[in-house]
Amino acid sequence: MASPKNDGSVDDNNGVDYVVHYKIPVKEKAQAEAGYIELIKALTTVGLASEVRRASKDSLYVFVKIASNELLQKQVYRSRLQDWLHGVRSAGPNQDVAKTLENEPVTEAERLRLVYLMIIKPENEGGAGITEKVGKWKHVDAIFPLQNRAFNKEWISTWSGKYLLEEAEIHNIRERFGENITMYFVFLRSYLRFLVIPSAIGFSAWLCLGQFSMIYAVATCLWSVVFFEYWKKKELDLAVQWGVRRVSEIQQPRPEYQWEYEQEDPVTGEALRVYPPMKRLQTQILQVPFALACVIALGSLSLTAISLEIFINEVYNGPGKQYLTFVPTVILVVCTPIISSILMTAAKALTDRENYATVDAYHAALIQKQFVLNFMTSYMPLLFTTFVYLPFGHVLIPALDFWRRTAQAITFSKAPLATREFQINPQRISAQMFYFTVTAQIVNFATELVVPYIKQRAFAKAKEIQAKRSEETVQDNPEEAEFMKRVRNEYEMDVYDVTEDYREMVMQFGYLNLFSVAWPLAPCCFLVNNWVELRSDALKIAMSCRRPVPWRADSIGPWLQTLGVLSWLGSVTSSAIVFLCSRDRDGERGGASNFTAWGLLLSILLVEHFYFLAQIVVRTVLDKLESPGLQKERKERFQMKRRLLQDHLGQDVADRPAAPGIENSEKITRAALEEEARRTSIRGKGLPSEIFWQRQHGMQETIDVGRMFITQMDVKNGKPDNTAQPSPRA
Amino acid sequence: MASPKNDGSVDDNNGVDYVVHYKIPVKEKAQAEAGYIELIKALTTVGLASEVRRASKDSLYVFVKIASNELLQKQVYRSRLQDWLHGVRSAGPNQDVAKTLENEPVTEAERLRLVYLMIIKPENEGGAGITEKVGKWKHVDAIFPLQNRAFNKEWISTWSGKYLLEEAEIHNIRERFGENITMYFVFLRSYLRFLVIPSAIGFSAWLCLGQFSMIYAVATCLWSVVFFEYWKKKELDLAVQWGVRRVSEIQQPRPEYQWEYEQEDPVTGEALRVYPPMKRLQTQILQVPFALACVIALGSLSLTAISLEIFINEVYNGPGKQYLTFVPTVILVVCTPIISSILMTAAKALTDRENYATVDAYHAALIQKQFVLNFMTSYMPLLFTTFVYLPFGHVLIPALDFWRRTAQAITFSKAPLATREFQINPQRISAQMFYFTVTAQIVNFATELVVPYIKQRAFAKAKEIQAKRSEETVQDNPEEAEFMKRVRNEYEMDVYDVTEDYREMVMQFGYLNLFSVAWPLAPCCFLVNNWVELRSDALKIAMSCRRPVPWRADSIGPWLQTLGVLSWLGSVTSSAIVFLCSRDRDGERGGASNFTAWGLLLSILLVEHFYFLAQIVVRTVLDKLESPGLQKERKERFQMKRRLLQDHLGQDVADRPAAPGIENSEKITRAALEEEARRTSIRGKGLPSEIFWQRQHGMQETIDVGRMFITQMDVKNGKPDNTAQPSPRA
Repeated sequence: MASPKNDGSVDDNNGVDYVVHYKIPVKEKAQAEAGYIELIKALTTVGLASEVRRASKDSLYVFVKIASNELLQKQVYRSRLQDWLHGVRSAGPNQDVAKTLENEPVTEAERLRLVYLMIIKPENEGGAGITEKVGKWKHVDAIFPLQNRAFNKEWISTWSGKYLLEEAEIHNIRERFGENITMYFVFLRSYLRFLVIPSAIGFSAWLCLGQFSMIYAVATCLWSVVFFEYWKKKELDLAVQWGVRRVSEIQQPRPEYQWEYEQEDPVTGEALRVYPPMKRLQTQILQVPFALACVIALGSLSLTAISLEIFINEVYNGPGKQYLTFVPTVILVVCTPIISSILMTAAKALTDRENYATVDAYHAALIQKQFVLNFMTSYMPLLFTTFVYLPFGHVLIPALDFWRRTAQAITFSKAPLATREFQINPQRISAQMFYFTVTAQIVNFATELVVPYIKQRAFAKAKEIQAKRSEETVQDNPEEAEFMKRVRNEYEMDVYDVTEDYREMVMQFGYLNLFSVAWPLAPCCFLVNNWVELRSDALKIAMSCRRPVPWRADSIGPWLQTLGVLSWLGSVTSSAIVFLCSRDRDGERGGASNFTAWGLLLSILLVEHFYFLAQIVVRTVLDKLESPGLQKERKERFQMKRRLLQDHLGQDVADRPAAPGIENSEKITRAALEEEARRTSIRGKGLPSEIFWQRQHGMQETIDVGRMFITQMDVKNGKPDNTAQPSPRA
Repeated sequence: MASPKNDGSVDDNNGVDYVVHYKIPVKEKAQAEAGYIELIKALTTVGLASEVRRASKDSLYVFVKIASNELLQKQVYRSRLQDWLHGVRSAGPNQDVAKTLENEPVTEAERLRLVYLMIIKPENEGGAGITEKVGKWKHVDAIFPLQNRAFNKEWISTWSGKYLLEEAEIHNIRERFGENITMYFVFLRSYLRFLVIPSAIGFSAWLCLGQFSMIYAVATCLWSVVFFEYWKKKELDLAVQWGVRRVSEIQQPRPEYQWEYEQEDPVTGEALRVYPPMKRLQTQILQVPFALACVIALGSLSLTAISLEIFINEVYNGPGKQYLTFVPTVILVVCTPIISSILMTAAKALTDRENYATVDAYHAALIQKQFVLNFMTSYMPLLFTTFVYLPFGHVLIPALDFWRRTAQAITFSKAPLATREFQINPQRISAQMFYFTVTAQIVNFATELVVPYIKQRAFAKAKEIQAKRSEETVQDNPEEAEFMKRVRNEYEMDVYDVTEDYREMVMQFGYLNLFSVAWPLAPCCFLVNNWVELRSDALKIAMSCRRPVPWRADSIGPWLQTLGVLSWLGSVTSSAIVFLCSRDRDGERGGASNFTAWGLLLSILLVEHFYFLAQIVVRTVLDKLESPGLQKERKERFQMKRRLLQDHLGQDVADRPAAPGIENSEKITRAALEEEARRTSIRGKGLPSEIFWQRQHGMQETIDVGRMFITQMDVKNGKPDNTAQPSPRA
């Protein structure tokens, strides 16, 4: 039996790998019971041991662990082989299973990932094919691993004394939570470190240059290019160091996928299940009306709220102004989530209809749509201010008139409302930016960490009270009571989704790039926020969420692309804001229509091309630096090939350049030429080409004849050489 | 002995692989003689047989061939092994040398390339280290292979009857002239095929839309994006199909390279000779003043010539106008080559000082500078017209006044010159475009093909006459006279440089993209020109140039980047031309300063972003299509790995997904659990986690207990379950 240390199991959890929460609804009891039997059978068939306990009044917990260490080792070995086949690993695993595991012990993350795959993989790929809440497994409510309490406690406590994550900690997180979540933490750490630069620039700009400084805009633009290119390289390097490069190519099939016909894979020869891409494209085209719907719905909401806000704040001067100020905010706060959730449902339905074959493709498509939505809700007000309010403020006058008339109609007053004259206020964008940077971040922090904690506590308390009142508590075995309480507790927690955290950071990166020129202190706020975020996210994963399945990842995925888009867009909006607002501040502008459009376009054009140029330069410079991970990979590949080569040839041919055998070539030459001479003499005169090569036999003769030619040149300088081709043989 | 068919030698050439032309200058005879002896020794040492003949009054021909078939086979095998080590080949060569050569026979190109490498490689890498005209080999005037007459004759004759190259012919060219030249022909063929589209659009635009059509501009922009992206993919595919992918990473060291210190390669462990990159960067920064010098020198020349031309053609109305018209052209024709060659010398000196370690890096750097120069000389007049003459024509008035005063001073006339009022003429750009498209192409054709041919004939004749007169002819052996005459003939020929041909095509692509909107018939002319070019280039290589060394190449190299730059620049200039000229045509414009700058900027901005968008879309679409070459490569890799895997495991594990042994997992489960139970009962009570997993033994018990729980829910619906955790064992 292998060493018990090398199986990635957690002692504290009674060796439980996964908990399956199985619901028994009163109405479908018979069906659920049949399903339960099938569940246990399916688990056992693939080699998973199970224990059942009562979870609550109407549900069961099925505890799952891998049946034996031998099976785990087989699984690990097979998975590593498959990695190698897909090019994830440069060297194939050792032929000896035990040695492989000794060289590279099984981590908690690897164990949990493999067991989860055993549970969810389709039957034809050797899994139990159990899918949460789908189809015949609709009573399977949740499948989740249990937290490693000892590690979490240590993690959180070590961290409170440190400024940033250290390499050793990253290693530990990776062994417990897998590469997908670790990638997020490393991304956050890199971003946090990089934020120091715009913070410093922003702070100095705020002190010396004030708002709307072109220098600040260009510096941020440059910074974002460097950060983006740096991260692209870093991400690749991490993937190589962690041995997960190209892991995103190993795709997990989506259980909901519906294929139309089978086709042979031209590469592997396996049967591929195909959904015609043209059919999918037809559905994908629906994204255009979807995006339009987003723009129209959220745009008109923004327009309403903003024009009302402008009317109240900057035009209206009548009674109740202090209360009316909140009306637009209330409208936004109430309507945005409603419209968002409707659109989000549409986005999900659309993505479902697009019928992707793999989980990754599905998620990428969903994230793309979500990003469009988030982009609208987050940046619409600021974009509106930049590109409509500031340059074409006068187009708002009809809307303001509409509000004036509405207000008069409501108040039933015939007398004209007390209003001021409408004036475009360039500070508006700074105020908005302040709101999004400070207020929104604090609110977000509260909703993300404090609210779930309170909610969970309250729910637990409520359930306890309710259960006590109705005397419905499930009695556990006293020895297990503590453990069962913990399992119930973890079940109640939120499901952690790393996408949400990425989304938050990417949107923040967008604020910084697109609009921070209006309020240069924004990066400082983000710096503080993210320092807290790094810790609060760790707390969230360790304390207030179910433990996530430790997936692997070789990249931050679709977010990389959105970072690129935001970085580019930043160059456009920053230059526009600088041009529009700095002119305003100087009070140069007369009428709204008189501003120089060509100046605006020129400044956008210049900064944008500066962005492209910077991108090329930064990319070229970074390409020249070899990253440690890639170097390691190249070295491994080289050594592997050299080893194979030595096996092949039985000599260290690989060490030597493709040189001929210098030491014996002279011999070859002479031997070959003499051989040729002999052959020719046997056959008689021989071919012209043979005669040609026999005029001078061997090196010395060639040298002698050549020297004779040279001497001839000397002797008969300027005179013809009438002797025929000389032959020393003659 | 291996089959004589499989050694890539050419019978017609007496088996000669290379001819070395060795000069014996009268003044340095002793030194040259010593050098000659060293040459023959060096060649013999690496395994090359040599024969010497008199070439002319003061030079020798050394004929070189590889000494034996065995040595050739060893060289081929070693080179293929090294390819595999560098990742050029996906599968390593067979262990059996003879079998490897049987599977993949040695081609003429491979043989010639390897022999050439044996001649020129440095001694520490196992070559003879002979370099043309450099250092101690300064008397080595030329090293060249002989043409394969039989093949060339057939090639040219087959081709005259065909419209385009066929795959079989590409294969033949590749086997004779190597991948580098074949890549050029395939590029030219692809480009020619693609040209049909803009020709058709251009012709219809000329018929229906006239000049300066935005539709034509956008269509060309789109076309150039598609062509560029297509070629990038095609190039990669070709490289894979030809088995030369990543061949550009196998670098040939530059003999002139001067290193400062040695360092160990972190990957291969070999000693690397390093020149500090920062030092090189310092030299590279000199490229900025170089580019400025190009702009100033060629720009002021253009300005002079153009303003003079405008003055004569559009302002001057006095006597002698018909003769004076040619003055600016003469100035340009005389001065451009002078300035160009000065700048080219500077570029070469600069590149030399940059001290690149490899031949490829050196060439790429040189081509880059050359491109800047070519760009200036070719496009400067047209760019000047587009961005200075058309929008800011009035700035030329001082220059015109200068010419007026000069003219008056020259003619000594007090009376005012007969002039017309200066008027900006938008048709100017079309006239220029016509000149560059038609006139220049015809002139170019003449200089490229006809002139060298005449020159060579004339030279040969002159030499013959001269030789006869001075009775200096070298008397050859009558049997070899015919052959020697041919060798002398080929030696007299030009050296073929594929870079020149690429340059011509890339500059043409530039004309099409940047300016053809001014004269939409340009693509049709290019189409005709290139149809001829494809043939004339073949003729050139086969008939009027020395046979080039058959290098390999996996890409068109630095030209790819220039294609991309020109394609992007096209979007900018086309939209500018359309905006500036179509407004002019409508006669809307009043004064020169009154044109709408914002309109110009907006149209540039829009078309440029259309270009970026199109690029993303085209790239995405093309990425989805799998090219045959890449598919083939993936398949090869997959099969190789599968084979290795089967060797490793002795079973077809690779065919099966990473599934557990379904058939025996049940057994494992039961066995493992029972084993555990036995162990526990021996040890007594056991650990809590062991007790946890022993409550239910095996699948059936878990099912039974679960069913019992479910039944309990049913019976005591709403009532508490007071029994402790039930155990069927109890």
